[in-house]
Amino acid sequence: MRVADLPTPALVVDAPALTRNLDTMSAALPGARLRPHVKAHKCSALAREQAGRGHPGFTGATPRELLGLARAGLGEDLLLANESVDEDRLRALATSGARVTVAVDSEATIDAAVHAGIRDVLVDVNVGMPRCGVPADRAGALADLARSHGLTVRGAMGYEGHAVLVADRAERSKLTADAMAVLARAHDAVGGEIVSAGGTGTYDVNETATEIQAGSYALMDTAYAHLDLPFEHALAVVATVIHTNPKWSVADCGLKALGMDHGDPSIDGARVLFCSDEHVTFTTDVPLAVGERVLVRPAHVDPTVAYHEALQIADGPGIDAAVVDTWAVDLRGW
Amino acid sequence: MRVADLPTPALVVDAPALTRNLDTMSAALPGARLRPHVKAHKCSALAREQAGRGHPGFTGATPRELLGLARAGLGEDLLLANESVDEDRLRALATSGARVTVAVDSEATIDAAVHAGIRDVLVDVNVGMPRCGVPADRAGALADLARSHGLTVRGAMGYEGHAVLVADRAERSKLTADAMAVLARAHDAVGGEIVSAGGTGTYDVNETATEIQAGSYALMDTAYAHLDLPFEHALAVVATVIHTNPKWSVADCGLKALGMDHGDPSIDGARVLFCSDEHVTFTTDVPLAVGERVLVRPAHVDPTVAYHEALQIADGPGIDAAVVDTWAVDLRGW
Repeated sequence: MRVADLPTPALVVDAPALTRNLDTMSAALPGARLRPHVKAHKCSALAREQAGRGHPGFTGATPRELLGLARAGLGEDLLLANESVDEDRLRALATSGARVTVAVDSEATIDAAVHAGIRDVLVDVNVGMPRCGVPADRAGALADLARSHGLTVRGAMGYEGHAVLVADRAERSKLTADAMAVLARAHDAVGGEIVSAGGTGTYDVNETATEIQAGSYALMDTAYAHLDLPFEHALAVVATVIHTNPKWSVADCGLKALGMDHGDPSIDGARVLFCSDEHVTFTTDVPLAVGERVLVRPAHVDPTVAYHEALQIADGPGIDAAVVDTWAVDLRGW
Repeated sequence: MRVADLPTPALVVDAPALTRNLDTMSAALPGARLRPHVKAHKCSALAREQAGRGHPGFTGATPRELLGLARAGLGEDLLLANESVDEDRLRALATSGARVTVAVDSEATIDAAVHAGIRDVLVDVNVGMPRCGVPADRAGALADLARSHGLTVRGAMGYEGHAVLVADRAERSKLTADAMAVLARAHDAVGGEIVSAGGTGTYDVNETATEIQAGSYALMDTAYAHLDLPFEHALAVVATVIHTNPKWSVADCGLKALGMDHGDPSIDGARVLFCSDEHVTFTTDVPLAVGERVLVRPAHVDPTVAYHEALQIADGPGIDAAVVDTWAVDLRGW
């Protein structure tokens, strides 16, 4: 089957581009230097490709992402890089057979981990982005509290999310260095062997973290297009033209097939006018016919993948590429 | 179980508000005057509530929405109010046991319907919104073409999507009347007993359509809040506060639990700063504690529901309401 023969809308991965992305990152950050984040792809088959390149651990944002990895036999060293006080879900992780480490940044999150039978934690430190994480000057006390409850504190983590999308490399490096100075100070007080941080935008400028939590590099995001990164866009939604007239065309890829928080998608050789629930309306210079296929590039990969049941794996980038495999998006939900 | 005891993020429906919305619409548009659109809720259990109020037919935007209704025994008169040239999916509808009518607006869509064994069609007419639909002056010829292929043309449809969100009622009425004049002219040429149009924003100003395709009224959308409509917001996402500090709080409801095309969600008594994949960062005047629940109101209901597996049905609006039922969001996908 070709990409152009798939029922639409369907998520399509350019497998050679994916392979190049995975190989490039593994060469830069071999083995445990990379802890791939699965939130962008939510696919245990893709995670298996990452594990096969020698990365023993994974990062997830939800309990279900990690449970799915555990069930797929990829549970050697899983990190929930997010706070949770859901003891039932934490207990499911603790009894999954996988080694699971969870982020804690408060007494409440430590209590939940203890009650759920979690054994390993990282102290999550705020390094500049207004989200989770304890202030650096309280990280040591929190680690002590965790140890007093019998938890093993494996180290500290922090996410320089305010730096990862900064276009200028020097500025990105400086923001990252400043953030990592905060994390290093916290880590001195916390102890443990791990300093976990980073993302696709900072994978090669973060010189402090012992492991980088990059995930977007595998499929790549339009949002990173303005950065000087060696990764290629490997994901698109194939859609069918269902209406055309002299002024515009419409394809069957709408709001429910696309993450829209970064704005409208793009279509090569076309200008996107707007999206509806199940439609994208666009103009082209070359007339299209009803039934033709177009490749729609989502503005944000992560929430796009979360709408779909499967990744269709193609042997190249275009609509004439052959579909060689289908990978379930099996790590969706919470 | 209370709403505050649900694993989060979870979609919660205020059942009394839903009931009032359904009753209000059924009183205004009894029986076949309303053909409820299921794309907003994607839930056959909710559709059953609509059918129980005397509406024999349903509207859907995707084949899978209609197949799910057919499987749920709600297939008396289903309309695919969207173009499709996917003969496999159309064939599944044609053999589902339901009566299925599909929209056509081109020779290609007629051919696909014929090849798939579809028997009933509506001619979809463009009435002013740049999406699908044949120009009114070609609608009669398209109906003739459909009949020449053995199809039954039940009438015409058109969607005044450029009118449904206009705040001023007089202006909304005028835009709707203008659009429906186009549709009526097309219908004169097309023939058949049905003129299908409308939405929640125009349900009471559209005086031309024989049936209104409203769907948002059941759960209601923030986008309609500035209109003078008698429907209440009945949907929210319950989330857990996972981090708090003197400056901001974070709850576990992010981009993958929310439709974001209309912008950030809202939280009563709070100011939302931004959303990440699995987080919403916000400020409140009253301090919150980790573990507290908040209700997050999505800016757009339809793409929000499409991310979730279930609607939790509560006996009232707040986090202390009792969860009395769980309805699967069983009409997702394509």
